[in-house]
Amino acid sequence: MVIDCHGHYTTSPPQLAAYRARQVRDLADPHALRSKGALGIGDDEIRESLEAHQLRLQRERGTALTLFSPRAAGMGHHLGDATTSRHWSEHCNELVHRVCTLYPDNFAGVCQLPQSPGASPASCIPELERCVNEFGFVGCNLNPDPSGGYWSGPRLTDRAWYPLYERMVELDVPAMLHTSQSCNPHFHTAGAHYLNGDTTAFMQLLDSDLFADFPTLRFVIPHGGGAVPYHWGRYRGIAQDLGRPPLADGVLRNVYFDTCVYHRPGMALLLEVIPADNVLFAAEVFGAVQGVDPTTGHPFDDTKRYIDDIGWLGEDARRKIFHANAIRVYPRLARRAAACARSEAAA
Amino acid sequence: MVIDCHGHYTTSPPQLAAYRARQVRDLADPHALRSKGALGIGDDEIRESLEAHQLRLQRERGTALTLFSPRAAGMGHHLGDATTSRHWSEHCNELVHRVCTLYPDNFAGVCQLPQSPGASPASCIPELERCVNEFGFVGCNLNPDPSGGYWSGPRLTDRAWYPLYERMVELDVPAMLHTSQSCNPHFHTAGAHYLNGDTTAFMQLLDSDLFADFPTLRFVIPHGGGAVPYHWGRYRGIAQDLGRPPLADGVLRNVYFDTCVYHRPGMALLLEVIPADNVLFAAEVFGAVQGVDPTTGHPFDDTKRYIDDIGWLGEDARRKIFHANAIRVYPRLARRAAACARSEAAA
Repeated sequence: MVIDCHGHYTTSPPQLAAYRARQVRDLADPHALRSKGALGIGDDEIRESLEAHQLRLQRERGTALTLFSPRAAGMGHHLGDATTSRHWSEHCNELVHRVCTLYPDNFAGVCQLPQSPGASPASCIPELERCVNEFGFVGCNLNPDPSGGYWSGPRLTDRAWYPLYERMVELDVPAMLHTSQSCNPHFHTAGAHYLNGDTTAFMQLLDSDLFADFPTLRFVIPHGGGAVPYHWGRYRGIAQDLGRPPLADGVLRNVYFDTCVYHRPGMALLLEVIPADNVLFAAEVFGAVQGVDPTTGHPFDDTKRYIDDIGWLGEDARRKIFHANAIRVYPRLARRAAACARSEAAA
Repeated sequence: MVIDCHGHYTTSPPQLAAYRARQVRDLADPHALRSKGALGIGDDEIRESLEAHQLRLQRERGTALTLFSPRAAGMGHHLGDATTSRHWSEHCNELVHRVCTLYPDNFAGVCQLPQSPGASPASCIPELERCVNEFGFVGCNLNPDPSGGYWSGPRLTDRAWYPLYERMVELDVPAMLHTSQSCNPHFHTAGAHYLNGDTTAFMQLLDSDLFADFPTLRFVIPHGGGAVPYHWGRYRGIAQDLGRPPLADGVLRNVYFDTCVYHRPGMALLLEVIPADNVLFAAEVFGAVQGVDPTTGHPFDDTKRYIDDIGWLGEDARRKIFHANAIRVYPRLARRAAACARSEAAA
């Protein structure tokens, strides 16, 4: 069974983008009502948006289940204020919940948090609880830089985050640390800001005692960990110079990497240097790179193909990477995954 | 012959740091004179600072020549104003010039630029000219983020940089794109800000027509290119999606990567995905990682050992990576390199 831990609803019906455009436009209008409003999206439109896209690729590539969250670039926490972010996050999460209700065998929900620059991370707790307890979501996406490329808020290891981390631990849900759209012209969103966010987050976690305070807190770093596995020797050396424990005994007890690396050599490096216990399969389809690699004739984002092609990777490692780690890191997935396995066996 | 294109004077005599501390302290004193002042460093102190460090490692590791510049984290362009930065850069560059005069066979100078947030990049031209024309320096280090982690200035592709680029082209000197110390608490300097700077700079160059305007402008991206080679498929795909030429026919005509990658798997990836014409040997000794890798028993930063160990790398590629590319990218190096080769042959 293959679980993809990193999927976003990038193909949502156009009413969602229209809602957001209205919401952002209203920010400049002092007379705007600023109510939550409604999206006006029908179930058939949701089905249509998925059948030709994510569901087709699941069938074609043999993915049983996708951990599905709102579009990462769309989170846009830097826009408006905490109310803006709350209304927007609620709509995005409710839409993902509808997806998961329509296709319970194919998708498990991961929520966007209503972060906002200057607002306390604790203000995200009610939406996290709603998504986990009422919708059955299995994790959340946490933006380490809600300022959108100016990095002006507290570090991930700051105590400002602790109330949210406490609730994550109680609910037993991990967070994928994923930045959103960059509004800093220096950073191309998919070509720099995402990867910089991954690298930055890892280094913050390496150089902290956060996991002494939260031994069971778990973070997934997307995009193959940004620059980290490529510079694994650098990080092992920095940890040693800082007097930190070896990475495998330290930060890797709580930190995981996904496999969103879009060529075989990069994937082979990831699987060579990062222990199999710390790698979760992902492709992020209909994401940052949607074309076909002219050197292979296959889509860049068909990450399973790269892994399948790495002959030295053992069966036990494959089992962990393709599904067992996901079920361990996202414990609330277990029931859904069991249901998937039953329907696969019956098929 | 082995040329290391990335060395900093990290072991300079303590008077240099004391000067900088005074200079920064004086910024808060409205009555301070703010004159350039003097360092008071003797030639013997310079010799001593190098003999036990960079020169010892050159001998031990078989490096003929190091491209030597002031300490990268020490540039600190965010501190003070343009006058602060001019005095500090002049001192740092003059000290490197003394190193290169004392050891002309071992070091070739690369200058720090007196950048300052808000100041025009054109204000760096006089110091660049002085270092190249009077001191015989062969290149410069250009900081893509003089704000020190807030990324508030113009992008590298902004026309504000054009006067400096014009002069670089006329002088036929490349720039290594190297950030300095981070004053943003999110970014560990060596563990995040350097690598993020590399990744950010590459993506800015990929997504621009800068090299149509400057066909002979050359940039070296340090630290093995940040996250870029690991995500080479992602960048090939993004370039394709953006309608840019393939990387090998586009940005790689003007952009090079060094080999500061501190473990064998990362080095093998770099050499597998980046054409040999675009890779310049470097180790950055007495740099970010100074310890011994317990898994190999050798220093993390002994990058030549990783390359030597990669059996499939051909002799022609080794020749390019170890010295031919450096001489091509830094043409002013040719005379110095020829002198080194003669003294190696005589030894």
